[in-house]
Amino acid sequence: MSGEEAPTQQQQPEQQEKKPDEPPPAPAADAADAPQEERSAPAAEEKTLSFRALVLTGHGGYDKVKLQVKTQSEPRLQPGEVLVRVKACGLNFGELLGRMGMDEMLPSPPVTMGMEGSGVIEAVGEDVKERKVGDRVIVLSLGGMWQEVVVVSASRTFPMPEQMSFEEGAALSVNYVTAYLMLFEMANVRPGKSVLIHMAAGGVGIAASQLCQTVQDVTVFGTASASKHETIAQGGVTHLIDYRTKDYVAEIRKISPKGVDIVLDPLGGSDSQKGFSLLKPLGTLVVYGATNSVTGPKKNLLAIAKTWYNQLSLNTLKLMPANKAVCGFYLGHIVNEELVSRTMFKLLELYGQGKIKPHIDSCYHFEEVADAMRRMHERLNIGKIILLPEAKKEEEKPKSDPEPVENVEKTEAAVNEKKEEATEEVKEEKD
Amino acid sequence: MSGEEAPTQQQQPEQQEKKPDEPPPAPAADAADAPQEERSAPAAEEKTLSFRALVLTGHGGYDKVKLQVKTQSEPRLQPGEVLVRVKACGLNFGELLGRMGMDEMLPSPPVTMGMEGSGVIEAVGEDVKERKVGDRVIVLSLGGMWQEVVVVSASRTFPMPEQMSFEEGAALSVNYVTAYLMLFEMANVRPGKSVLIHMAAGGVGIAASQLCQTVQDVTVFGTASASKHETIAQGGVTHLIDYRTKDYVAEIRKISPKGVDIVLDPLGGSDSQKGFSLLKPLGTLVVYGATNSVTGPKKNLLAIAKTWYNQLSLNTLKLMPANKAVCGFYLGHIVNEELVSRTMFKLLELYGQGKIKPHIDSCYHFEEVADAMRRMHERLNIGKIILLPEAKKEEEKPKSDPEPVENVEKTEAAVNEKKEEATEEVKEEKD
Repeated sequence: MSGEEAPTQQQQPEQQEKKPDEPPPAPAADAADAPQEERSAPAAEEKTLSFRALVLTGHGGYDKVKLQVKTQSEPRLQPGEVLVRVKACGLNFGELLGRMGMDEMLPSPPVTMGMEGSGVIEAVGEDVKERKVGDRVIVLSLGGMWQEVVVVSASRTFPMPEQMSFEEGAALSVNYVTAYLMLFEMANVRPGKSVLIHMAAGGVGIAASQLCQTVQDVTVFGTASASKHETIAQGGVTHLIDYRTKDYVAEIRKISPKGVDIVLDPLGGSDSQKGFSLLKPLGTLVVYGATNSVTGPKKNLLAIAKTWYNQLSLNTLKLMPANKAVCGFYLGHIVNEELVSRTMFKLLELYGQGKIKPHIDSCYHFEEVADAMRRMHERLNIGKIILLPEAKKEEEKPKSDPEPVENVEKTEAAVNEKKEEATEEVKEEKD
Repeated sequence: MSGEEAPTQQQQPEQQEKKPDEPPPAPAADAADAPQEERSAPAAEEKTLSFRALVLTGHGGYDKVKLQVKTQSEPRLQPGEVLVRVKACGLNFGELLGRMGMDEMLPSPPVTMGMEGSGVIEAVGEDVKERKVGDRVIVLSLGGMWQEVVVVSASRTFPMPEQMSFEEGAALSVNYVTAYLMLFEMANVRPGKSVLIHMAAGGVGIAASQLCQTVQDVTVFGTASASKHETIAQGGVTHLIDYRTKDYVAEIRKISPKGVDIVLDPLGGSDSQKGFSLLKPLGTLVVYGATNSVTGPKKNLLAIAKTWYNQLSLNTLKLMPANKAVCGFYLGHIVNEELVSRTMFKLLELYGQGKIKPHIDSCYHFEEVADAMRRMHERLNIGKIILLPEAKKEEEKPKSDPEPVENVEKTEAAVNEKKEEATEEVKEEKD
């Protein structure tokens, strides 16, 4: 067991002054690729901007994500761009992979991760007509969202309804767009169909369960550990299965001997094979992750090898007699902005109708990012984990005052309480 | 070159008297499996029934399908069954594979093949309420349709609209159900999508092209040899590509650099790989055949091995970053009668609205089944090849009278005319 699994120390932000010729804050992927531009060249008369950012400084355990305070000249917006003050960010499994060095798409460290967030527009560039200063927006980006201010294309921002909190806004995009595209673009869920949703208590799992409820007579089989069943029971899952004590394949066959029409699989490895075997004719397996290859906070080569070895591999001559479909899905590679935008507006419509609502598991300030990641690694979360750029107030900090912010403390208590249990869970999943 | 490729002699039906304890005419798959039943045991007082049937007598070339006249006691219908006098049958690629011994589902010879046909109900069993004597029906069966009379479950019959000919009726089921399920159940074609249809002049190809036209703004790329372009130009194909003189991948990229949303692939082998590469993100490849493994009237082990070797093989870790779906489809394994029935009624509705209409390539009497099969093997057909159980009239027979039935003669002329060309085509496809 590595030292990184010891209780996490809250970070004190490092002060970092940016050189005047650095680009303005922007999604990491863009920033890493973009040539240094003229717009930030003459720095003499410019105001400076100081902001907190989480920076991945290398690949490895929790301590590789550092909180830094950056100071740089205020960015000049290009036409079509907006500057957003970020109020909340989403944590996704992809960032855990990124930290461990398992996301090939992520630029090399140092880099700021984060695909989604919400906030308030502070400035708009030329030609921005649909957004104005003061608008509350959701931002779905390619990366770089884990910082207090970001510059993004206005087309990547979406207006937040009045009743939506910033935490909900930060939770709506990646999980719900993923679930929506898998269910409606790839798997074509329709009335009367049945769906197996693994990790039904996770962010995508809850989103998918809610979206299934928007279609008539859809039966949802959801796997989750028993301790989570009560919380997600109202979320649209027809049959909840504790995968840790029961064989989910057998449980599903008991209820539906012919199997299911759709399987959403974030696990990979042998679970993809089981999912394929569970499909009815004309059924669809959508694989969108390989969490089976992740067992702890660092790369586990054995788990990766095992997941690869057990990975579902098919040729078309085998698919034909089976009448089945196998799909892969990875949101990070969907570059069709029009599709993503259309999907986001559809989701905002469903939210407005009260048909979907993100379930927030917990909120962590940037200082506590290690705890947030640990909570997801150990699969303790039910729904979305949120990161808050705003500095934790003095009185909230355990060192100066043991009185906790309620939300955070609950989470930490839960982490400690369930640590032993979680370790066992990981062991089981290795088998 | 085997002797079987010499011009085919028309068959004289063999007389076969059935033993009184043989089961009544029924789809081959059933007949082969079914135990001998009490219903046909006491034969003394029963009327006999004489009918023509095409019987596969062994695996191999064209001469393995023999025309026989069977005589047996009149069948007693079980509840729910109907007796249909068959007026027209469809020829499908599956029967060519069956003859060559390449369809593992087909019972061993002697067996009667044929999945579809049309005719008139001559008798109904108990509990049949939806059908009555005299009804013109389409029959979609598991096999055994290539005979003058069949006994089938009434649920496998579908009422023919008044304006529909028996030939059209026999052409509607297998090709259109296949195309419909692939496009709407597996690939989820919707407005604005693009579809690549291989063998666009074949039965499924024409059906799929017409069905794509029922959805707004669908762009269809169709491959077919240039000689067929004129005939199918009105059939819903937006861009016709002569795959024999042009690289279809390059042609499609010229028109649509990002590729297509859906590929319907009956070819297999390296074409499945090309199809996969042509898919846009969230696109779907449906493989429903491996005609690349068939080069002539007999099993070609080299072609089979080559198709296997080049078969698209994918694991889910490769599918994920690609955001693509791969499906296999084989109608013979779809046992969901409700789904097939619902699809047939949907197709009859579309036919009634004038939105789909089978294109009949040619009609052959049972005596001429070898010519019919040869025409399909050599890919000379545009649309559906029909087999007619009714005996060819004396004056039609070339031996007694050279004056031909127009339809058949045209076909034969075409076969002879294009034989050289077709041989070249086969060679090209081996490359």
